[in-house]
Amino acid sequence: MDKLVYNFSAGPAMLPVEVMKQAQAEFRDFNGLGVSVMELSHRGADYMAVAAQAERDLRELMQIPDNYKVLFLQGGGRGQFAAVPLNLMGKNAKADYIVTGQWSKSAVAEAEKVGKVRVLDGLQKTADGRQALATGWDLDPTAAYVHYCPNETVEGIEYDFIPDTGDVPLVADMSSTILSRPVDVSRFGIIYAGAQKNIGPSGLAVVIVRDDLLAQACPQTPAILDYAAMAKADSMLNTPPTYAWYLSGLVFQWLKRQGGLAAIGERNQAKAELLYGFVDASDFYRNDIAPSARSWMNVPFWLKDDALNDAFLKEAKAAGLLALKGHRIVGGMRASLYNAMPIEGVQALVSFMDKFAKQHG
Amino acid sequence: MDKLVYNFSAGPAMLPVEVMKQAQAEFRDFNGLGVSVMELSHRGADYMAVAAQAERDLRELMQIPDNYKVLFLQGGGRGQFAAVPLNLMGKNAKADYIVTGQWSKSAVAEAEKVGKVRVLDGLQKTADGRQALATGWDLDPTAAYVHYCPNETVEGIEYDFIPDTGDVPLVADMSSTILSRPVDVSRFGIIYAGAQKNIGPSGLAVVIVRDDLLAQACPQTPAILDYAAMAKADSMLNTPPTYAWYLSGLVFQWLKRQGGLAAIGERNQAKAELLYGFVDASDFYRNDIAPSARSWMNVPFWLKDDALNDAFLKEAKAAGLLALKGHRIVGGMRASLYNAMPIEGVQALVSFMDKFAKQHG
Repeated sequence: MDKLVYNFSAGPAMLPVEVMKQAQAEFRDFNGLGVSVMELSHRGADYMAVAAQAERDLRELMQIPDNYKVLFLQGGGRGQFAAVPLNLMGKNAKADYIVTGQWSKSAVAEAEKVGKVRVLDGLQKTADGRQALATGWDLDPTAAYVHYCPNETVEGIEYDFIPDTGDVPLVADMSSTILSRPVDVSRFGIIYAGAQKNIGPSGLAVVIVRDDLLAQACPQTPAILDYAAMAKADSMLNTPPTYAWYLSGLVFQWLKRQGGLAAIGERNQAKAELLYGFVDASDFYRNDIAPSARSWMNVPFWLKDDALNDAFLKEAKAAGLLALKGHRIVGGMRASLYNAMPIEGVQALVSFMDKFAKQHG
Repeated sequence: MDKLVYNFSAGPAMLPVEVMKQAQAEFRDFNGLGVSVMELSHRGADYMAVAAQAERDLRELMQIPDNYKVLFLQGGGRGQFAAVPLNLMGKNAKADYIVTGQWSKSAVAEAEKVGKVRVLDGLQKTADGRQALATGWDLDPTAAYVHYCPNETVEGIEYDFIPDTGDVPLVADMSSTILSRPVDVSRFGIIYAGAQKNIGPSGLAVVIVRDDLLAQACPQTPAILDYAAMAKADSMLNTPPTYAWYLSGLVFQWLKRQGGLAAIGERNQAKAELLYGFVDASDFYRNDIAPSARSWMNVPFWLKDDALNDAFLKEAKAAGLLALKGHRIVGGMRASLYNAMPIEGVQALVSFMDKFAKQHG
């Protein structure tokens, strides 16, 4: 019998239980071949079918237009922090970066190795002092692209709109929000995401890139980060992370069985509202982000007394509620509610938080 | 009951059966935590212990001196083709590359994006026309480093000696030979390897780098390829490929139980000699590489009539002998005999080859 735990890790994060059961069952004998999917040559027909199916399912889920390539690469989101400027700054080495937190800031550092970066503040305060998102920016219409991070995993800040950048291609680090709700891919030049939150295990990055952006790479771009070369080779210029790609494919199929992104989006909203609603109604817990900017995926909250943090984490773990410690930069707690987290997990968390507040309030 | 197959894939390759059984058993519940090792945060104590143990075991197996860092990175061997020049050419942008086949040649292309590369022929013919390794090269004593590939996976050519490069650091792409026999790490500046042959699943690269080589990176080096930054962060500057790292750790423990590299080296030699001996004694099969340059890990062989290739592969597969097709560049057949391949697999292959030759000879 399974031990009942809910894993709120920000990433690597929990994967759907159904997916993990299937992967375990066929771990050493995939499709009756007598070997693991991770022991298959990536050039063989058996693995190629797995890879192609995953791409088809992702295209269907996100309704990716035909003029976009889908790449399965290595190096995670941070690899893409470098890949984006290397692939886009070959002809025009300047870009605008909207910064809203830790991850969009980290992207700037890699872009500055390649070209000229203008940093634009993406945050503003509401009248009542809450953290909100800026809705206008002093964009450079001659920039090669505009980069932003729709969901900041550390701060728990998420866009509920897509920035309008006119004719300048918009590049989004969707690592912690991809597949969490429907999104209009045609509004983006590039969408990329590290897999270890809403896609699959760590070690994989998914890149969705519009065809016309494949012809402006810097000549020094390493092959493993070169979108055009990878697109030409169906992401197999070198040996891809085959097992992570396969597991991601199982997640895509699971998402289709859940009803796709519209259905999962409704569930994610309900999960987030349950937790934020409880926190807002409490005088023991707090979250200071404006409702319009609150993340559905990563919910940071703070206890009224930091001295209780250790007790909270210890008792939560004993109750089967794992990985709730907030990022060291912001402290407090953080519950990551990715697609694989069932509503029952959030209910269990709220119930525990209520009990803890009554005991320690 | 397991289906009995032997998987001769060149990579991703078979993993030890014992390792795969353990990984399957604890796939969804690692150490009683109720979650998979791939669902653990890389920053948590549970996963950090896995990562640290893997490094300790690799250090013990290879007897890696204390003045070398061990890194667990993404991007495979081809990522390191770029990382090596980016990390070593910051102060002196020229290097010598000894080319002996497909992989050492591919490394040149990435290095040429960073600096000046001299290509040195690493091959020579024996008096009887066989392919052998050159033992002297016109090395530049002022080069930043000398790069070579001790085992060419495609051609089946392996060094049985370490080139003497004097004071110039020697860099080795050991992707398909690492851990196959003892090696004196102190003779190298850098050893790197894609994992998917003798270490673990694809998506991981292991880099062993001497401390004094960590201070000469080019400023444009992407963070995910930056050895000094990765060494400082214990390979966790970004989320590492945690599951591949864990599985590699299980392989290292398995290798220790086998008696370490001296014991596994003897077995690998015996496996290779069994197959080469059979091929040499046959007038149906052939291998034209000089005995001193023959790979223990990748054994290419050709049938006397290429028209029989399809029948050979079909009948081999029916007999449970998988992935024997040679690389498209050289044709014929290739049996990869990495550590995980038991002698029984080679015996089964030789027995099948004998039967096939008698039927079709």
